[in-house]
Amino acid sequence: MPEISIRGKKLPESSIRKLVPFADAAKERGTHVFHLNIGQPDIKTPAHAIERIKNFDFELIPYGNSAGNLSYRTKLAKYYQSHHLHVDASNILVTTGGSEAISFAFKACFNPGDEIIIPEPFYANYLSFAQESDIVIKTIPSTIEDGFKLPSIEKFREVITEKTKGIFICNPSNPTGYLYSEEELHSLASIVKEYDLYLISDEVYNEFVYDGKKHCSVLSLEEIKEHVIMIDSVSKHFSACGVRIGSLVSFNKQVIATILKFAMARLCPPILGQEVAEAAFDSPPEYIEGVYQEYLKRRNYCIDRLNQMKGVYAPMPQGAFYSIVKLPIDHCDKFCQWLLEEFSFNNATVMLAPATGFYKTEGAGVDQVRIAYVLNTEDLEKALDCLEEALKIYPGRK
Amino acid sequence: MPEISIRGKKLPESSIRKLVPFADAAKERGTHVFHLNIGQPDIKTPAHAIERIKNFDFELIPYGNSAGNLSYRTKLAKYYQSHHLHVDASNILVTTGGSEAISFAFKACFNPGDEIIIPEPFYANYLSFAQESDIVIKTIPSTIEDGFKLPSIEKFREVITEKTKGIFICNPSNPTGYLYSEEELHSLASIVKEYDLYLISDEVYNEFVYDGKKHCSVLSLEEIKEHVIMIDSVSKHFSACGVRIGSLVSFNKQVIATILKFAMARLCPPILGQEVAEAAFDSPPEYIEGVYQEYLKRRNYCIDRLNQMKGVYAPMPQGAFYSIVKLPIDHCDKFCQWLLEEFSFNNATVMLAPATGFYKTEGAGVDQVRIAYVLNTEDLEKALDCLEEALKIYPGRK
Repeated sequence: MPEISIRGKKLPESSIRKLVPFADAAKERGTHVFHLNIGQPDIKTPAHAIERIKNFDFELIPYGNSAGNLSYRTKLAKYYQSHHLHVDASNILVTTGGSEAISFAFKACFNPGDEIIIPEPFYANYLSFAQESDIVIKTIPSTIEDGFKLPSIEKFREVITEKTKGIFICNPSNPTGYLYSEEELHSLASIVKEYDLYLISDEVYNEFVYDGKKHCSVLSLEEIKEHVIMIDSVSKHFSACGVRIGSLVSFNKQVIATILKFAMARLCPPILGQEVAEAAFDSPPEYIEGVYQEYLKRRNYCIDRLNQMKGVYAPMPQGAFYSIVKLPIDHCDKFCQWLLEEFSFNNATVMLAPATGFYKTEGAGVDQVRIAYVLNTEDLEKALDCLEEALKIYPGRK
Repeated sequence: MPEISIRGKKLPESSIRKLVPFADAAKERGTHVFHLNIGQPDIKTPAHAIERIKNFDFELIPYGNSAGNLSYRTKLAKYYQSHHLHVDASNILVTTGGSEAISFAFKACFNPGDEIIIPEPFYANYLSFAQESDIVIKTIPSTIEDGFKLPSIEKFREVITEKTKGIFICNPSNPTGYLYSEEELHSLASIVKEYDLYLISDEVYNEFVYDGKKHCSVLSLEEIKEHVIMIDSVSKHFSACGVRIGSLVSFNKQVIATILKFAMARLCPPILGQEVAEAAFDSPPEYIEGVYQEYLKRRNYCIDRLNQMKGVYAPMPQGAFYSIVKLPIDHCDKFCQWLLEEFSFNNATVMLAPATGFYKTEGAGVDQVRIAYVLNTEDLEKALDCLEEALKIYPGRK
């Protein structure tokens, strides 16, 4: 029997995935499991977008443009322009989810063995995309004590080597909810320029920014215009994760031309998803406003509630719908498994994402979990009741 | 400005793609262009499958299972079982088109620098997927004189090195239309077993097999059960290229588990496409039979007509809907461009795929083109009228 590849062996199995059998077993026992472990919102996809699909009147679903439908790219460009970004359709490639956009960016910009720097904690799948392309992720720590703000530029300088070719950020951040300030981004730009790096920014949560703050896209960084690649997606924006429609935006013509070659090899992004995505951008402003208000309510409830629990600390996230939360526990992997395997309260329990999955540094984040506030406040309340009760009796409590 | 990657630079630009501006210019001049250059059928997607989308009654389009919907995998398994293949849902992963299935197989099975053997000519994008994963394609020639039959096992033996980890075939073949016999597959199996290789077979055209022949899937090769990976897709089967739904089938549990890790990183295949694909398999048998008869008619017309043209030779394809055709010309790249740039007949011309794009060996296939008989016979007749007239006056005729 032939061996599988080293790449395949090295690819991490997610810490959330390891918990799935325990969640399934809990459900089989009749215990309700509240899922705060994944970024799957319960918010409805815009009715307008679903309507487009119901009115689908083609007799044939053919290949589309490898770059994405021009009509959709034009609509996306208008959307970015409304956010004061000087983007046109030729700067945009439509991708199969934000995932493919990241994967394309890695392959187009980096050689095998090249290094990129990502502040830690970070979205676990970045590691998979990097390993797939034989790119090395170097991390620098951001800390819960500092609210996960951008590490100092000195910290970046310390890990830069001759192999460093890029910096990758998620803004606002999954998993921390941190929103980088304009000032932080300009300071990143300075080091990007100094070392001639790429700056890739995953901005799929850009519509979820709270407390009157303003999201600053890397596309606005004029001083490094040719260096930036922005990743976007309709998954969270329009609660349409399953359509698998993302986008990649760059002012660098060579980057776009190169990624288009990768895009042509896989022929085209999903046609039906593009229909939904295009229609979604015509949703009434009340849709986005309603979704925003809902997340705001959830965030406020969730974070306040967490911080009232003894020994728990959750910095107030200013974006996205996640929080990395510090718990008085021995180890998050153990605790999250225990929640599913041994605990229940009112015949329910809660599934959380162990923060170890978001740290590359061995031993980091062991007393942290990521909470996604993607449930309605009623369910959120019950889920947090479970967490509160669990912390009272968890044998590994510290 | 940072440099793009070596991977990106090396990725070939397709020879068809280079012709697109000339086709666009021809259309702008008012010349009708008959597209025999791509595998985009004009056949309708099953009405039953389109209906499923029209009746879509969900309010939310969430992430699905990374392996693909269980209901769809179960349906696929039944379909394979009806073809006497002992497959169950756990052997199947749903992918974003056959393209992603190939890409996953390469990453899971091969290390950077590993070599795979592909008989030439082959579908151009295999080269892109290989380069993306830093895998080296070694080719051995199959020839138009032999009707593109499997090269002798000795030829495989000659190119096998310590780095060889797999053999890749397309059966029935795009671009040649050749159908491998059961005997040929068993002889392939012997060398696969001897050298402990993977055998990956792209079988997306498996429903298009003519003249009473029988398609033999690599999944039926009991002697190398753990070595084979089969690639499939609904794109051609149900004329639904735009839904981007493929599948990968393997009896090797380690291969499936490894590819699932890659699949989890990209979250899930498109949900709407899976709905269409699942419904498509409930199409009445008349749909498949009707499509089959239509292609048969086109094939017979197309190949007969080609072979009546002076100096032209097209072996009779026994599967798929392509033929590699030998023309009395100096160079196919030049000829195909000339067709679009300088020629017209009855205010129309024809776009063909230069065969050079399907050969890795420099200088091979220069007097060949690939013709996709994907147009109705009326258009096919007009397109071939163009070709016939063009060959009479082409300045580079030999």
